[in-house]
Amino acid sequence: MALIVQKYGGTSVGSTERMKAVAQRVLATQKQGHDVAVVVSAMSGETNRLLGLVKELTDRPDDREVDVVVATGEQVSIGLVAIAIQTLGGKARSFLGDQCTIVTDSTFSKARIKSIDAKNIFKALKQKEIAVIAGFQGTDEHGNVTTLGRGGSDTTAVAIAAALKADACEIYTDVDGVYTTDPRICPAAKKLDKISYEEMLELASLGGKVLQIRSVELAMNYKVPLWVKSSFSDDPGTLCCEEDESMEDVVVNAVALDSNEAKIAVFGIPDGVGIASKIFGALDEKAIVVDLIVQNVPRDGKVDLTFTVGKADLVKATDVVKKIAKAIRADSVETSGDVAKVSIVGVGMRNHSGVAARMFEVLAKEGINLEAISTSEIRVSALIASKYAELAVRSLHTAFGLDAKRAKKK
Amino acid sequence: MALIVQKYGGTSVGSTERMKAVAQRVLATQKQGHDVAVVVSAMSGETNRLLGLVKELTDRPDDREVDVVVATGEQVSIGLVAIAIQTLGGKARSFLGDQCTIVTDSTFSKARIKSIDAKNIFKALKQKEIAVIAGFQGTDEHGNVTTLGRGGSDTTAVAIAAALKADACEIYTDVDGVYTTDPRICPAAKKLDKISYEEMLELASLGGKVLQIRSVELAMNYKVPLWVKSSFSDDPGTLCCEEDESMEDVVVNAVALDSNEAKIAVFGIPDGVGIASKIFGALDEKAIVVDLIVQNVPRDGKVDLTFTVGKADLVKATDVVKKIAKAIRADSVETSGDVAKVSIVGVGMRNHSGVAARMFEVLAKEGINLEAISTSEIRVSALIASKYAELAVRSLHTAFGLDAKRAKKK
Repeated sequence: MALIVQKYGGTSVGSTERMKAVAQRVLATQKQGHDVAVVVSAMSGETNRLLGLVKELTDRPDDREVDVVVATGEQVSIGLVAIAIQTLGGKARSFLGDQCTIVTDSTFSKARIKSIDAKNIFKALKQKEIAVIAGFQGTDEHGNVTTLGRGGSDTTAVAIAAALKADACEIYTDVDGVYTTDPRICPAAKKLDKISYEEMLELASLGGKVLQIRSVELAMNYKVPLWVKSSFSDDPGTLCCEEDESMEDVVVNAVALDSNEAKIAVFGIPDGVGIASKIFGALDEKAIVVDLIVQNVPRDGKVDLTFTVGKADLVKATDVVKKIAKAIRADSVETSGDVAKVSIVGVGMRNHSGVAARMFEVLAKEGINLEAISTSEIRVSALIASKYAELAVRSLHTAFGLDAKRAKKK
Repeated sequence: MALIVQKYGGTSVGSTERMKAVAQRVLATQKQGHDVAVVVSAMSGETNRLLGLVKELTDRPDDREVDVVVATGEQVSIGLVAIAIQTLGGKARSFLGDQCTIVTDSTFSKARIKSIDAKNIFKALKQKEIAVIAGFQGTDEHGNVTTLGRGGSDTTAVAIAAALKADACEIYTDVDGVYTTDPRICPAAKKLDKISYEEMLELASLGGKVLQIRSVELAMNYKVPLWVKSSFSDDPGTLCCEEDESMEDVVVNAVALDSNEAKIAVFGIPDGVGIASKIFGALDEKAIVVDLIVQNVPRDGKVDLTFTVGKADLVKATDVVKKIAKAIRADSVETSGDVAKVSIVGVGMRNHSGVAARMFEVLAKEGINLEAISTSEIRVSALIASKYAELAVRSLHTAFGLDAKRAKKK
C-alpha cells in the first residue's frame, strides 16, 4: 500500500465527462489499496476566461484582486471532481488552499509556498476519503488569497506529496510524457522513459510547458519521484528522478523552444557603475524575472543593454525600464515580442566539450542570427528571431542525433 | 456623512461594462462624503452555469461540494468590481465571506448567518477604501465554505448593514422598486414609494423575487432602512421601513404570484396520530420548507394530505415522502409542478373584514378552482392550476382597486 498524489491538468478536467474519467482513474488507484490525494487545475480555458474579464477592465490590474478572481477556477474543479467521485460511489472531500493548509508569502500572482499543514488531508485519507485539493493557490499569513503563477498546480502537487511523504507524485496531462522536443514542431521527437531532475529543471525553465519549474525544484529537493503521464492513455509515461550513470552517455537529451519571452533593449546608456543593477533591481522589486542578458562593450562612452522578460511581464517591465532609462539619460528603449529562445539540454554535456560551438554552427548554417546566448553546465540557449524558431528546433534535433534514436529503438 | 451599504445583483454586475457603471455609482456615493461598503452577487447567469455543471454529473450532489462550486460566482465579482473601482482611481479591497468575517451554521446551500465580525471592514473604511464584499456566502465554524441560498446576497447586505450599524442599505437590482404586482403580467402595476417590513416579508415569502425573505426579516429585526433601487436609473426606488398610519388605509397593497412551488399529495393515509408530524418532521430534517398544507376529514378511516414545497426541493422531498408513505401504508403519492400560488397582501387587512371572501369570489367568477388556501394577518394565498396564474393576478389587481390607483396619481 502506497500513498500517491495525482495531479490532473486543465484538459484532464476540461469537461464534466473528463472529470468522470478522472474519478474512475482515482478510484481504480484507491482500489489497488493506495491512499490517494488529487490536485486539480482549473477547467481548460477557465483561467484565460477569467483573465480576459480582468483585461476588459484594465491592462494593469491590482494583483491581489486578480488572484481573488483566478483562484476560483480551481475551486470550481475541486467541487466538481469531488462530486464526480461521489457519484461513482467513492468518498471524497474537497480542500481549498486554506483548508489543507497551504500558507504562502504575499507575492500575489507569483506566491511561493512557505508551509503546508497536512493534518486535515491525513484525517480525510484515514477515513478512506479521496482528498481533492485545489492547485495553484494558497493564503498568506493575513488570510489573503494568493496564486502560485501559471502551472502552479504542479507545484501544489509536489509540495503536497512532499508534505505527505508520498511514495509518488503523478502529473497527468494531455501528453504521455516528456519528449526530446515538441512533437508538433518536430515529428521525429521521441518520448523519454526517464529524465534527471536537473534536465527537467532546464526544460521547465525553457518553457517546455510540461511542468512548472518550481515543482521540479521541489521534487529534486525532497526527492519526490515525479511521473509525467497522460490522462488519456495507460502509457507508463516519463519518470523524473535522480541522475544515474546511463543518462551521461547522451550528450543532448532534448531540444527546447520558449516563445514566451520578450526582448527589451536599452540603447545608448552613459557608461557608469551600477546601471545594470539599478535596472535589474527595479525589475526584481516588481517580481519580474529577467532571463538572457547581453551588454556590449562601451563605444563613445555609451553601452547598449539587451535582456529578456516573460511576455506577460512586458508591459509592466517596459514601464519600469523607461522610467529608469529617462533618469539615467539613455538614448532609447525598444521592445519586441518577436523572439524565441531555442535550447539544447543534457547532463552528458558535463563530460563532452564543444557542444555549444556545434550548436552555433548548426544555426549559422541555416542562416539564423543569434541575438543573445546563455549557458549552464547542462544547457546552451540562444535567442533568435521567432520566424526561425521551428527551423532551429528541427535542425538541432537532427544534428544532435535525436531523430536517429527513435529509428534505432524501433 | 453616513455609512451606506449598497448591494448590486447579478444583472447589475452582469458584464465588465456594467461593473464600471457600478464603480461609478459607488464612487459618486463616496464623493458625497459617505463611507461605502458594497455587496455583490455573481454575474447574471453564472450561478446557473455552475449549477448546470453540477447537474451534468448528478441530480443529487453533495451540498458541501455544491457550495464550494457556486460560491466562486461572487468571488469573481468582488475581484472584478474592486478592480473596476481602482481603474477609476478609487481605493477598493475585496472581502470573501471568511475575510469579513461571516460565520454561518453548517446547513450547506441554505446556511444561516450566526455572527459577523466587521473589524476588517471598518479598518478598510477608515482608510477610505470601498469594501467590496462577496454576497451569498460565509464559512462555518470548521472552515467549510457555505452559501445562504438563492438571493442570499440580499441577506449578506442587510446583515453587513446591521453589523456596521449602517444608516441605509440600498439594494440595487434591475427593477426600480417594489410594484403592486409583476408589471410583466399586469401592465397596470404601479411602483410603491414605501412598504412596511411586514408586507415586504409576505411578498418576499411569496416569491416576489425582489428581496430574499431572510434579508427582510433581518432588516425588520435590526430596523435597517432598506431601499430597493434600480442600478440603471436614478429613480429613488421603494423604501422598506416600519409601518406607519398612512399604510393602513389601503386594504390590499400588492398581488403576488409564486410559480416556484410544487405540490405533493399523499392519498389514503390510514388515520392515526402523529402521521403529519412524521412526514413534516422528516422533511424538516432535510431542511425542506413546507408551505401550504391541506388535510381533508377522514373517510373510511383514511385521510388525504396535500402540501407544497419549493420546486427545487421536489426530487428530494418526493424521496422522503415516498419512503414514509410506504412505511405508514398510504395508498399513493402524487406530485405536480403545475401549480401556482397567488396572494393578496396589505397591512390594512387587519382593520377590514371579508377580504378573503372577496378574493375567492373574484377567482370563482373566472372559473378558477382553489387547491389549497393559507392566510396570515395581512395576507391571503390560494394554490391554483398554473395555467390560470396570470388571469388570477390581473383579476385580483383590478378587483382590489390597484389599477385605479395608478390612474388617479397620474
